[in-house]
Amino acid sequence: MDISTALDKIKPVNPARLNEVQARIDSQAKPQGSLGRLEELARRFVAITGRDAIRKKVVFTFAGDHGVVAEGVSAFPKEVTPQMVYNFIDGGAAINALARHAEAEVIVVDMGVDHEFESLAGLIDKKIARGTANFTRGPAMSREQAVQALETGIELALYARDAGMDLVGTGDMGIGNTTPSSAILAAFSGLAVEQLTHRGTGIDDEGLQRKIAAIQKGLEVNAPNPDDPIDVLAKVGGFEIAGIAGLIVGCAALGIPVVVDGFISTAGALIASELHPHVKDYLFASHKSVEIGHVHMLDRIGQQPLLDLGLRLGEGTGGALVMSLIEAALQGYRDIRTFDEAGVSDKDQA
Amino acid sequence: MDISTALDKIKPVNPARLNEVQARIDSQAKPQGSLGRLEELARRFVAITGRDAIRKKVVFTFAGDHGVVAEGVSAFPKEVTPQMVYNFIDGGAAINALARHAEAEVIVVDMGVDHEFESLAGLIDKKIARGTANFTRGPAMSREQAVQALETGIELALYARDAGMDLVGTGDMGIGNTTPSSAILAAFSGLAVEQLTHRGTGIDDEGLQRKIAAIQKGLEVNAPNPDDPIDVLAKVGGFEIAGIAGLIVGCAALGIPVVVDGFISTAGALIASELHPHVKDYLFASHKSVEIGHVHMLDRIGQQPLLDLGLRLGEGTGGALVMSLIEAALQGYRDIRTFDEAGVSDKDQA
Repeated sequence: MDISTALDKIKPVNPARLNEVQARIDSQAKPQGSLGRLEELARRFVAITGRDAIRKKVVFTFAGDHGVVAEGVSAFPKEVTPQMVYNFIDGGAAINALARHAEAEVIVVDMGVDHEFESLAGLIDKKIARGTANFTRGPAMSREQAVQALETGIELALYARDAGMDLVGTGDMGIGNTTPSSAILAAFSGLAVEQLTHRGTGIDDEGLQRKIAAIQKGLEVNAPNPDDPIDVLAKVGGFEIAGIAGLIVGCAALGIPVVVDGFISTAGALIASELHPHVKDYLFASHKSVEIGHVHMLDRIGQQPLLDLGLRLGEGTGGALVMSLIEAALQGYRDIRTFDEAGVSDKDQA
Repeated sequence: MDISTALDKIKPVNPARLNEVQARIDSQAKPQGSLGRLEELARRFVAITGRDAIRKKVVFTFAGDHGVVAEGVSAFPKEVTPQMVYNFIDGGAAINALARHAEAEVIVVDMGVDHEFESLAGLIDKKIARGTANFTRGPAMSREQAVQALETGIELALYARDAGMDLVGTGDMGIGNTTPSSAILAAFSGLAVEQLTHRGTGIDDEGLQRKIAAIQKGLEVNAPNPDDPIDVLAKVGGFEIAGIAGLIVGCAALGIPVVVDGFISTAGALIASELHPHVKDYLFASHKSVEIGHVHMLDRIGQQPLLDLGLRLGEGTGGALVMSLIEAALQGYRDIRTFDEAGVSDKDQA
């Protein structure tokens, strides 16, 4: 499915259906609204999918490298991107552990790692190039590559639908990828780069200054057009961010709810949301990242994060935690008896 | 075990052990500290218990009635307390659903419901009286009853230990019980009752004024001594709150971590913490309740709530969600490979 076909398919979630589901929640024997945001999770999931239970869950962890790493913007060397891909495939990373807990599958997608992998069971090869170009010197990728990466994400959404996956999580791996994420946000918001740029995996003060300077230079050199999200993506984005954005567009088109992980995933969600205003109806913002730009991204796509646990790992880890929270909300939706069923007196009945 | 024996047994968690566990976490292949509060959960659970996996989990939901309900302080009639006890036993309440999701057992304890239950499988009869007295006219209970209720909680902690329960959650049911909870907090903190008193299950403006007035009168009539937590508990507390406080004291004495639910459970935790300064070492504050007094309670016992989801249901529901979060943290602790094991380069190694 191409990008414009997918965008055409995106519709707002039916408000009547949302009200119907909430009415069922309100009939359950508890003070009205007393399960707070769990009620929102159940309401939205059930209204979006028409289901009150999740058959299968999946986290897509997209990996890519970044030419801008040459500017000294990351605390970790770029060899870590392929090393972590091997770790994901072997099941030894944080996302594997947390997905195991959430009973979700992890699918690792090579969107543009600067390494030639042998054929590996569990790794989907969608490599567009061996890393983006250094955006301080020109666009990170061509517009054609950006479209190709977006359509790869859409294709994975189709795969998820066909495989009976009712809840999709996004994840990322790419040394240096908080840099393009901050750049994307700066391009759309026009806010000062200093306000949106943080320490990523833990860079020091000097590194932070280099990172800010690199983003400022990237914006000057490329002049991304904020009214053209694909232009922003191509000029200062990343292949894994593009994959996430495409996956989200595809899921919104197909009516599959998406749990969005932290800063990098939200950069992808931001691209998708700028492409279509109703993408946000299908998103669950999992957590508030330590990255200072994250709240600005979330505000821009109208999302309130569910968790605030000081996470700053990526990979899809925060999303995996929220999958479990959605499962809990659905368990409540299915199992809590109504006032009538339970023989419990409602409010103000003496 | 009597209360003074239990208090004598409470020791701080070994700081060397906490450091050891954190050192293992820091060796795992991810940026240091990047799992945020999940690392705290794993560190504290493992240091407290010496285990990296939970054998069994249990939520004790304590039920009791409140004489102060006669003052019109609740939106729900007091018949709802026994009705909900039946609902718990039948597995149809929110706590049953969320405990099912967390794979925790629910044990319901009648501490003082104003109803004679037939013998019911799954209901533990520890009834001290058929509800407390109306504290606007004198003490809610005698000091002897308060001690008996605390020791009931301690006994349940012993039961949990003997049954191999490595994680204990607290829960409550008692129409009117936000009123004694606010009163307890006011007695210890000296803050104005208006600042600590909220709408409970959803009382209207007039009811809120009655509730504030009842608490003020209860404090005037009884003059609870803030330096004597048992006096505070007896004069303006509740039987279920006493059970929770005793359970927490017992668990701290036995080295069992406790997940504390919302406002009423935290009132119990506050009593326990005022009895011994190291009780807090064993507590996990599950969530920030909608009740405005809750943050003041949490501040007083030095706890940062883990979730902020707008919950205001009680029963143990927020605690059940956090049990799942602790499980996720332990899965990470067990499964994430170290830099060495995974062959991943650490920070600043180029």
